[in-house]
Amino acid sequence: MPPRAARLGDIRPFHVMRLLERARELEASGRNIVHLEIGEPDFATPQPIVAAGRQALEDGRVHYTPARGLATLRQAVSGYYRERYGVDVDPNRILITPGASGALQLALAALVDPGMGVMLSDPGYPCNRNLVRLVEGVVRAVPVGAADGYQLTPELAAAHWRADTAALLVATPANPSGTLLSRAALAELAELCRNRGAALIVDEIYQGLTYDAEDITALAFGEDIFVINSFSKFFGMTGWRLGWLVVPADYAADLDVLAQNLFLAAGTLSQHAALAAFSPETRAILEQRRETFRQRRDFLLPALRELGFDIPVTPEGAFYLYANCRALTGNSFEFSQRLLEEAGVALTPGIDFGDHRAGEHVRFAYTTSLEALEEGVERLRRFLCGQA
Amino acid sequence: MPPRAARLGDIRPFHVMRLLERARELEASGRNIVHLEIGEPDFATPQPIVAAGRQALEDGRVHYTPARGLATLRQAVSGYYRERYGVDVDPNRILITPGASGALQLALAALVDPGMGVMLSDPGYPCNRNLVRLVEGVVRAVPVGAADGYQLTPELAAAHWRADTAALLVATPANPSGTLLSRAALAELAELCRNRGAALIVDEIYQGLTYDAEDITALAFGEDIFVINSFSKFFGMTGWRLGWLVVPADYAADLDVLAQNLFLAAGTLSQHAALAAFSPETRAILEQRRETFRQRRDFLLPALRELGFDIPVTPEGAFYLYANCRALTGNSFEFSQRLLEEAGVALTPGIDFGDHRAGEHVRFAYTTSLEALEEGVERLRRFLCGQA
Ligand SMILES: Cc1ncc(COP(=O)(O)O)c(C=O)c1O
Ligand SMILES: Cc1ncc(COP(=O)(O)O)c(C=O)c1O
Repeated sequence: MPPRAARLGDIRPFHVMRLLERARELEASGRNIVHLEIGEPDFATPQPIVAAGRQALEDGRVHYTPARGLATLRQAVSGYYRERYGVDVDPNRILITPGASGALQLALAALVDPGMGVMLSDPGYPCNRNLVRLVEGVVRAVPVGAADGYQLTPELAAAHWRADTAALLVATPANPSGTLLSRAALAELAELCRNRGAALIVDEIYQGLTYDAEDITALAFGEDIFVINSFSKFFGMTGWRLGWLVVPADYAADLDVLAQNLFLAAGTLSQHAALAAFSPETRAILEQRRETFRQRRDFLLPALRELGFDIPVTPEGAFYLYANCRALTGNSFEFSQRLLEEAGVALTPGIDFGDHRAGEHVRFAYTTSLEALEEGVERLRRFLCGQA
Repeated sequence: MPPRAARLGDIRPFHVMRLLERARELEASGRNIVHLEIGEPDFATPQPIVAAGRQALEDGRVHYTPARGLATLRQAVSGYYRERYGVDVDPNRILITPGASGALQLALAALVDPGMGVMLSDPGYPCNRNLVRLVEGVVRAVPVGAADGYQLTPELAAAHWRADTAALLVATPANPSGTLLSRAALAELAELCRNRGAALIVDEIYQGLTYDAEDITALAFGEDIFVINSFSKFFGMTGWRLGWLVVPADYAADLDVLAQNLFLAAGTLSQHAALAAFSPETRAILEQRRETFRQRRDFLLPALRELGFDIPVTPEGAFYLYANCRALTGNSFEFSQRLLEEAGVALTPGIDFGDHRAGEHVRFAYTTSLEALEEGVERLRRFLCGQA
């Protein structure tokens, strides 16, 4: 057999995939499953975006675009930052990418030399550590918990700083916790990185999906910050595979070349469709959906707390609740398996998000209807009663 | 400023991008340019594929697919190998990727440890060396020329073998030369790699686009070969960003996980659209297009030879002619610039494909109409007369 690169052995599969596969099996055998593990909106792509996609198809927009994306789309993203966030971002600093996934890969490839450290939170988005591994960087996971709002705070970052720290990677709102970094925290993180010669990468893929809190962008805190974003979540375009990356002006040309080598370009139809993502019509739809997500959260959060899940920090964004289930089980992975088999409810076990107290946590995603959430809570209630 | 990874400095921009930009400027100022530098078919995506895409849009196929792609599409690709090439490929060995670009990245990430060598031809597809650099591998470029059919032959591979060789990366038909590897050569390369514990990666992105020669697949020569392919070229779907990777069965599970981390998945609409790529209706359209490409080549090849370009090996595939222009110029990059400015013809200079005699070569792409090719040849003729 051919050789196998060492990194291949280091990249762990996600446990939720096994659960999802088992859920599909159970469904195929006739069981009803309440899905609370899915990390994407259940909504369809907003109609104006679909219509723009259809039009692009009619117009034969099927050839490669420039590597960094359509100029019109980069301008539209820039306009969005100005209007909605009051921040000026030169379109030349914006690269359109195949999802936030592509943006994360570009940023890490541009910043991280082999052996250099990337500080990130544990728990955190599972792909991050593997993307760091891909470029031969070293993951420096910082355990975070309720006291830190499940975020890599400036205090934690300073305390865990090492000589090899090349970049800090944070997400706000975060996956799996749904918690946010404040303006002050972002400004301090930026300042810390600036002073110590490291890069700050902020993943804003759940931007727009905030409920009680202010909707902000890290771009307000310096032109040296790398910002990841995507049309996947707030804009409801997961399967279109489209995101963007904002970089310091000095990096724009090199990242254009890197993007060309890695991807050639993001999808053409997707880019034309996304031109409709910032229209007033689409924005109205997205606002409604945000309201729906808020209602779901406002139902699920107290219901879970009542069942004995400990959710000490109110999640103010994304569509996730990261719950401590220590009062209910000693092993959240086994708990997730039993919950699926016996109660027909699918969750994501904490182990997928890191190592820190992973066995005490599960993630709930409210990416399903209020009725399904009610049914899920009812099933959980019965399951926990039977278990008690 | 944040740090800058060393690899960023090593990834060279493509000179053709500067020429293309200049061509656009000239066009904006009213000049007519004959484009012989474009590496994608000028045709629209075949109508049945567009129709399937439109239907998928109507059906709301906009959520993430599994990382390795839709099961139906993997089966369709497997069926295509069976019907057209008489080779059995288990759908489980097939991963759907964001273009051949994604497939190349996956394969290299899976096979190449830092410091290990990847042998490839010079000239060759420009992104390859940068993708090797990305995973901290070492490019071992082997100069190839007319005597080797512009291909990394088994003899050359054996002669240039080194202790650190982890993989061989070849393409057939090749970019920029349009030349092919024979059945015998593929079988020998596979055997060589097998005996020496390296991987053979064969990029078949121009498969289907062969003119006098037999249309084959390296998959016939062993289940340990990595094969790259794409819907971009033969199927006319460049902007859809969809390709595939065939791997040895033992690698399938790990590559699924790697794909999930790198991309999450390829585009959903694109995958549904591509289900129509293998239909008899589409195949008939593609056959016609192949005939058109053949006619263009059959016009351009003798016309260029007559003008003094040396094309010693008849290109039997893809849509490129790699021409030695030593008789006409001492510097093919400067020649390309002058040709653009003075004659309004855009070419790709050899420097974009490597270092080996790059200054003596240019690449012609016959991805434009016969009339445009005729006009281009006429402009070349006048330019060369004026120069003589
Ligand atoms: C925090 C975070 N970043 C990035 C991504 C990647 O998303 P995409 O590539 O669809 O934009 C996800 C997806 O779940 C995510 O949760
Ligand atoms: C030899 C070769 N391989 C791979 C690619 C990447 O193509 P895509 O990512 O569109 O499939 C190209 C594109 O020109 C190519 O010429």
